Amino acid sequence: MKLYDTKTAPNPRRTRIYLAEKGIEVPVEQVDMVAFQHKTPEYTAINPMQRMPALLLDDGTIITESIAICRYFEALHPEPALFGKTAKEQAQVEMWNRRSEIHFFANVAAVFRHLHPAMKEFEVPQIPDYAEAMRPRAIAFLELLDKELATREFVAGDFYSVADITTLCGVDFMRPSRVVMPEGLSNVKRWHAAVAARSSAKA
Amino acid sequence: MKLYDTKTAPNPRRTRIYLAEKGIEVPVEQVDMVAFQHKTPEYTAINPMQRMPALLLDDGTIITESIAICRYFEALHPEPALFGKTAKEQAQVEMWNRRSEIHFFANVAAVFRHLHPAMKEFEVPQIPDYAEAMRPRAIAFLELLDKELATREFVAGDFYSVADITTLCGVDFMRPSRVVMPEGLSNVKRWHAAVAARSSAKA
Repeated sequence: MKLYDTKTAPNPRRTRIYLAEKGIEVPVEQVDMVAFQHKTPEYTAINPMQRMPALLLDDGTIITESIAICRYFEALHPEPALFGKTAKEQAQVEMWNRRSEIHFFANVAAVFRHLHPAMKEFEVPQIPDYAEAMRPRAIAFLELLDKELATREFVAGDFYSVADITTLCGVDFMRPSRVVMPEGLSNVKRWHAAVAARSSAKA
Repeated sequence: MKLYDTKTAPNPRRTRIYLAEKGIEVPVEQVDMVAFQHKTPEYTAINPMQRMPALLLDDGTIITESIAICRYFEALHPEPALFGKTAKEQAQVEMWNRRSEIHFFANVAAVFRHLHPAMKEFEVPQIPDYAEAMRPRAIAFLELLDKELATREFVAGDFYSVADITTLCGVDFMRPSRVVMPEGLSNVKRWHAAVAARSSAKA
């Protein structure tokens, strides 16, 4: 088994934080996206979509998509449950992980990809108008989340889950994306301080 | 329990096809998106993100996001498994459902939302350049999928799953989005004919 990882990108970090929370160690090979190693024929044979991360299983199967890799380990190592336990919890984690991913994480990433000068060769064509249209949507999600976090400890409930991992990686990706955290949002800031202080956040 | 559904939108259709495949019947209330019923205070109280569908549980909990609703029922009714059975199958379904959703379904929807005249009041601002940049990516996914479907019957493996539901709804959304299915792609067309012929596809 081997995890193809990139230290500098937010999606592979989701998988690393997940593995740290579960206490699972996997041999890792770094793929340098700045050097375009994810576009080489060697890596394209592993993931034709040229995205990070990817997991090579012992039987040769490749699993891509950060959350799909997490689900593989969740099925093998159910405790601690990071996708919820009961039917309702599982649905709430899926709901909040998707809300965060679609309406926040992806919009922060859109600002980065379509506006940052360093992404000119990665996102072709860059469409700055799209970045500017998505920026307020990312902020709107945080405003919604702030109201939710007035009533509970974590993003999907009173337990830590992959929805916290996705949201943490999104918040921490705001700085390179030059998306400014608004004033206020005290519940989001309390939550962020708590999840960022977990040792898994260093992953 | 009640499902808030919209007959004309592709995401609610994913949930309806899933329920039809499982043989689960749920009381339904239609929300007319063309009449902006999803923007009313009544529906905003159900889903502040003003998106469809949503599931109201008997304890008052609201589950949104089409796939989160499916996962709720999957936990309660595991058979037939539409998210995979083994750890590897679960990871492969999640991988292909996400690949299809992110690189195909979302890109077809982007063409619809950012280019179709009927969406002018729904997607503000419309960014036609974004639509045109995403159109070839939707096609590129179908070309990749065609190679994959040369080796297996369904999107995620030799079993029907939510990855087929997502991809079917994406293909069927190409026509209103005016995304033209390329010549060739015989494996995609064989697969589409098979999944479109299932009685669940009428949902």
